[in-house]
Amino acid sequence: MIRHLLTTEDMGREELEDLLQLADEFVAVLGRDIPKVPALRGATVSTVFFEPSTRTRLSFEKAAKALSADVMTFNPATSAATKGESLKDTVLTLRAMGADLLVVRHAAAGAPWQVAEWVDVPVVNGGDGAHQHPTQALLDALTLRQRFGKLDGLRIGIVGDIRHSRVARSDIFAFNSLGAAVTLVGPSTLMPGDLTGWPVTVVSDLDAALPELDVVYLLRIQLERGGATVFPSLPEYVRRFGINRERFARLHAEAVVMHPGPMNRGVEITPDVADDPRSLVLDQVRNGVAVRMAVLFRLLVDGEAAYG
Amino acid sequence: MIRHLLTTEDMGREELEDLLQLADEFVAVLGRDIPKVPALRGATVSTVFFEPSTRTRLSFEKAAKALSADVMTFNPATSAATKGESLKDTVLTLRAMGADLLVVRHAAAGAPWQVAEWVDVPVVNGGDGAHQHPTQALLDALTLRQRFGKLDGLRIGIVGDIRHSRVARSDIFAFNSLGAAVTLVGPSTLMPGDLTGWPVTVVSDLDAALPELDVVYLLRIQLERGGATVFPSLPEYVRRFGINRERFARLHAEAVVMHPGPMNRGVEITPDVADDPRSLVLDQVRNGVAVRMAVLFRLLVDGEAAYG
Amino acid sequence: MIRHLLTTEDMGREELEDLLQLADEFVAVLGRDIPKVPALRGATVSTVFFEPSTRTRLSFEKAAKALSADVMTFNPATSAATKGESLKDTVLTLRAMGADLLVVRHAAAGAPWQVAEWVDVPVVNGGDGAHQHPTQALLDALTLRQRFGKLDGLRIGIVGDIRHSRVARSDIFAFNSLGAAVTLVGPSTLMPGDLTGWPVTVVSDLDAALPELDVVYLLRIQLERGGATVFPSLPEYVRRFGINRERFARLHAEAVVMHPGPMNRGVEITPDVADDPRSLVLDQVRNGVAVRMAVLFRLLVDGEAAYG
Repeated sequence: MIRHLLTTEDMGREELEDLLQLADEFVAVLGRDIPKVPALRGATVSTVFFEPSTRTRLSFEKAAKALSADVMTFNPATSAATKGESLKDTVLTLRAMGADLLVVRHAAAGAPWQVAEWVDVPVVNGGDGAHQHPTQALLDALTLRQRFGKLDGLRIGIVGDIRHSRVARSDIFAFNSLGAAVTLVGPSTLMPGDLTGWPVTVVSDLDAALPELDVVYLLRIQLERGGATVFPSLPEYVRRFGINRERFARLHAEAVVMHPGPMNRGVEITPDVADDPRSLVLDQVRNGVAVRMAVLFRLLVDGEAAYG
Repeated sequence: MIRHLLTTEDMGREELEDLLQLADEFVAVLGRDIPKVPALRGATVSTVFFEPSTRTRLSFEKAAKALSADVMTFNPATSAATKGESLKDTVLTLRAMGADLLVVRHAAAGAPWQVAEWVDVPVVNGGDGAHQHPTQALLDALTLRQRFGKLDGLRIGIVGDIRHSRVARSDIFAFNSLGAAVTLVGPSTLMPGDLTGWPVTVVSDLDAALPELDVVYLLRIQLERGGATVFPSLPEYVRRFGINRERFARLHAEAVVMHPGPMNRGVEITPDVADDPRSLVLDQVRNGVAVRMAVLFRLLVDGEAAYG
Repeated sequence: MIRHLLTTEDMGREELEDLLQLADEFVAVLGRDIPKVPALRGATVSTVFFEPSTRTRLSFEKAAKALSADVMTFNPATSAATKGESLKDTVLTLRAMGADLLVVRHAAAGAPWQVAEWVDVPVVNGGDGAHQHPTQALLDALTLRQRFGKLDGLRIGIVGDIRHSRVARSDIFAFNSLGAAVTLVGPSTLMPGDLTGWPVTVVSDLDAALPELDVVYLLRIQLERGGATVFPSLPEYVRRFGINRERFARLHAEAVVMHPGPMNRGVEITPDVADDPRSLVLDQVRNGVAVRMAVLFRLLVDGEAAYG
């Protein structure tokens, strides 16, 4: 059976901790003078991003190269060439051209599962609609483990547009499996309609919640998706849910701020807080490469679908 | 004298078979655990695609990497940066930057010949207008040789818009040199005005032709080029020339279906036929990498213009 | 202290000559059968081009690969993905993903200095607004040194739109430091408003100046920026400042013509002059790779900010 990384919803604590531990080793590799290992020499990792995301794509590609794999970048989001080709034919073609693993980002929730049914190699979900983005959850967990030693007992508040956020969906299940308590904070219009089965508490008053949190995880407001329509106005959002110096001061002295990026400085977060030593944003980016190395390694070297 | 690969029209059987045999060896290389050889280490292959074609470009780049060459991707189709620069200056610049071989795709028939006059390194025609696409013919021939052992005596029907197809022009001459008999099938509006000197038979009734064919080669209808103007309507085309389960059943039991991709499922071919084991579409894609490795190797290692 | 390459204005003769001498060695490397050295194995060079420029980007990337570095291409000019992200967050993100050196092109003069304040790795200015483009000056100087042995005493005329040209600004200071005498030639509307402190002579009559020049350096007319507005008409510009066969004949027998590319054939230069053996345009392109190798090597290997 081929193994994939599609969602954090079905990942147990053991599997998560195994990946985080392997990622720790790759953090050490990335700190070396020559930050590369030959583990995946000869393998080809293909990034297939139907939604543009240079950051996530580059992070996967850096991870692949640090493992000495080759990269095949298929960028349908900016390509006119594939007009009309079905998703199925696209991924079967990439596989036939020699891709040993596909990282798929797609606006449609579930697309990576479809792909996983069609190809005989591992598939990594690089973000599907408002559904899942599992490597984001892994890098967030790694970052918190580095900072706090473990996630057990951590009180994490995720703030913003939960309803449309694959980051939130992925983080909630991973954080919960690793022992943290997750609180969702945001206006009711940005909450999912049905939270049955979600291991979370929901509150709408950020200021009241802040003193009880160890981690404030800010979601990106998708300005480009017309975010303004789901709450009265952007200033209104900033006033109620933006983290500024004043709100930051309500946190206890060890508490940290996280954001998946790219940040809208002045919206979710003021520049002074973004640049504070207790903002872990760049640690998250750095750990993204190590976590993705761990995922590629587990799927391609240890998996039953080892390339070749 | 520098050798190029520009057209199949002047390729004799010996030259074709030499490339196919070398491609067979690279098929074996691509099946290894580490599907790479160091043959072109230090060489730089530049893809210069004035028409967008992610598939063909990635196939050439995968071939280059599998031979350990470096790749220089010049993508004027999506670049605003070269506005006004002449084709001549563009390719001389790429050569001066260290390109040891240029793969050129261009909307103008003949452009790769022009380029070959200007640069002192091998040029591969990656598709010029409605004229030639020789590596497509090589990969098609390799696929048929794998399936049938040889092309001698094979009856191949090429179906669709022959007039605007560089794939058809390339295939016809290669298939003929290798001993196959080619029949063109399509409405008269999609046939070239003058077929003098073409080694082909022309028919317009697909259903009558099917039982006599070993290979049905479907051309892509260029929907984006307003294909609808050269025949009454798309449904009309599908009704007369689309391959569906019923037409597929008229073929003999060993006959196969091919398509250069990307397929318009539901137009040239129904999904069930596209996914049938006797559809060789993915074999074609797979063989594309091996054939391009053979071409790069012959031109750069054996050619008198060896890089260096 | 981290070293950067931001401008030629503060580079002394010694520093320039050191880089040119190292570039000479890399010219030799590029002439080998396998034109690569392992000097930067494991390092990652990131190109961050907010203005599109495939040529310059490919030259830097070729230089990086010839030193065995990995390349991280961040192409915000063609990426919709970073809308709204600040320049600061973009470069800090690339650094956190493992970039060991950033090559930055930006429409805003001064942007690379900003970047250099934010990141803890070397920054190379790949062109900022109408301000500086230091590797262009280095490759131009290398080209002249190859041709004439040294720049001392050379009489160099830079012709065209000096006002908007970062190439002119970079060349003037480098050429002067290396001992050449620079004359600016163009209509007054295309001259900078204030030339205080510039080591140049200014003339407006090209024909009178030609016999006294060893080098005619033609700047590109930025047709796409509406160049027509700063002089009466394009034919008028061509008539007064375009180099054709007749004007070329007014040069002495050893004099040469240069152009940073891409050329507008028929505007700044007629095709016959562009293709003359005394046109050094392709030497400039070729030397661009060697010069950029020297810059990357000095900043990453010898600099105090060696990657790792």
